[in-house]
Amino acid sequence: VRSLAASRVVVIGLGLMGGSLAGALRGRCRTVVGVARRSETVDLARGRGLIDRGTTDVRSAVANADIVVFATPVRIILRQLPEVGPLLPDGCLVLDLGSTKAQILEAMAALPPHVEPLGGHPMCGRELSGIEAADVSLYRERTFILSPLERTSAEAIERGRELVAAVGASPLLLDAARQDRLVATLSHLPYLLACSLVRTADATTSPDPAAWEIVAGGYRDTSRVAGSDVTMMLDILVTNRDAVLAAASVFRDKLDELTRLLAAEDEPALRDLLVASRTERRRMFP
Amino acid sequence: VRSLAASRVVVIGLGLMGGSLAGALRGRCRTVVGVARRSETVDLARGRGLIDRGTTDVRSAVANADIVVFATPVRIILRQLPEVGPLLPDGCLVLDLGSTKAQILEAMAALPPHVEPLGGHPMCGRELSGIEAADVSLYRERTFILSPLERTSAEAIERGRELVAAVGASPLLLDAARQDRLVATLSHLPYLLACSLVRTADATTSPDPAAWEIVAGGYRDTSRVAGSDVTMMLDILVTNRDAVLAAASVFRDKLDELTRLLAAEDEPALRDLLVASRTERRRMFP
Repeated sequence: VRSLAASRVVVIGLGLMGGSLAGALRGRCRTVVGVARRSETVDLARGRGLIDRGTTDVRSAVANADIVVFATPVRIILRQLPEVGPLLPDGCLVLDLGSTKAQILEAMAALPPHVEPLGGHPMCGRELSGIEAADVSLYRERTFILSPLERTSAEAIERGRELVAAVGASPLLLDAARQDRLVATLSHLPYLLACSLVRTADATTSPDPAAWEIVAGGYRDTSRVAGSDVTMMLDILVTNRDAVLAAASVFRDKLDELTRLLAAEDEPALRDLLVASRTERRRMFP
Repeated sequence: VRSLAASRVVVIGLGLMGGSLAGALRGRCRTVVGVARRSETVDLARGRGLIDRGTTDVRSAVANADIVVFATPVRIILRQLPEVGPLLPDGCLVLDLGSTKAQILEAMAALPPHVEPLGGHPMCGRELSGIEAADVSLYRERTFILSPLERTSAEAIERGRELVAAVGASPLLLDAARQDRLVATLSHLPYLLACSLVRTADATTSPDPAAWEIVAGGYRDTSRVAGSDVTMMLDILVTNRDAVLAAASVFRDKLDELTRLLAAEDEPALRDLLVASRTERRRMFP
């Protein structure tokens, strides 16, 4: 097994996440090869210096890879894993960057026994997308969740940790179900809220030209992630559906509780909940 | 009537908004006098160079004011207006910084005829509060809503515009009902959503120590305004109750629509709504 510095790394999918990871790894491994569906994307990645080499042909790219990173949307990963798995060399580390892990780990469990699968989820989404938005500092000081399978060797986990550290992130080992439940509340629910808020404004205030002059910081921040890539987010929502719906249901109860108290002008109870929210927010982000 | 440069300005309330306004005006008027309930606050404002003079005594402060700005929470303003109004000199401009305007303009309408009332609402909240957070650049490049009464003279509106420009903001004339409806969706609803999201996390993921390591950018941004000052926000919600509840009701429908489509796995329809949200968000913040 090779060290990261001696490894040939292949990144499949050169969007924001894959392009940024490739660029951050370049110079820290033997080669970084980028794979994209469109040759224009490959050219852009090469032009920006994010990869050593690039191709649209997965088969040739992975033939002698030490590490393959799947950086496509979740359901593309689910389709690619069984296609690409049999092509991989012995001992190849198979990592992914998908935001939901249960279904991906299921697909990874079906990979041929000669490869080493390891689920990954870096916590560094942006509302931008595409290779144009790639940024080699994207992973710096971020948490990078690693979800091993039972079959994943300690040595493969160690290689995963090394890769995570090389891009400036901190590894956090979590099993798939726990990670999916956590990100449902902390990442996927905020996306649904942002979209619903934008649609609320669209239905109520947007027809008023003054709305555009007063969109305040609160709205701007609360709606930010509504700008996220739709194909990526749709895959996330569908593959984490139950956990997302459960989080949304708790949210609905919490919002209803606030509006009920406001409607009833029960100020002491309303104040208690607002104070609790403020305290909790400040505890999370001191 | 004096120019702004020759005016004695009194700012009542030296929190984030009042302290920042006082500091931004200082040097651009004859004097800036700050009034706070606690002498410690006055000392802090003076120590930070935000005011020329300060006092805890409203009566003496306003005796020969050209402009008085109420920068206390909305319901404190509602209580202070009838108390302070009769003490003001002839032609004094009475401005406020309250986030809701209908009730304040009603109270302003009852002011003695010798003063010039003008409702104000600068769009520059932060999740910080208090004189410690005051920042003379707070108003720069922000929209500053001005809501005149029928009795407000064109000359008083002009003085208001001059003050707004002096702190670096852009004035926007809006009647009270329209402003209250707009900010219900664009400012007050985002606050309720942020609080509800924090309470959702508190109920679901916060007991898991891993949650603290993975709180992502989406959650951080969507929950930011939950850190706002509770007394200020409670006053805002209560004095804009109907518009806030109406906005929350539309929001609930929009969220239900998304979760219903997700539950039914109706991807084409879900995608359409997510694309529409993304397009609208990008139209608002290009």
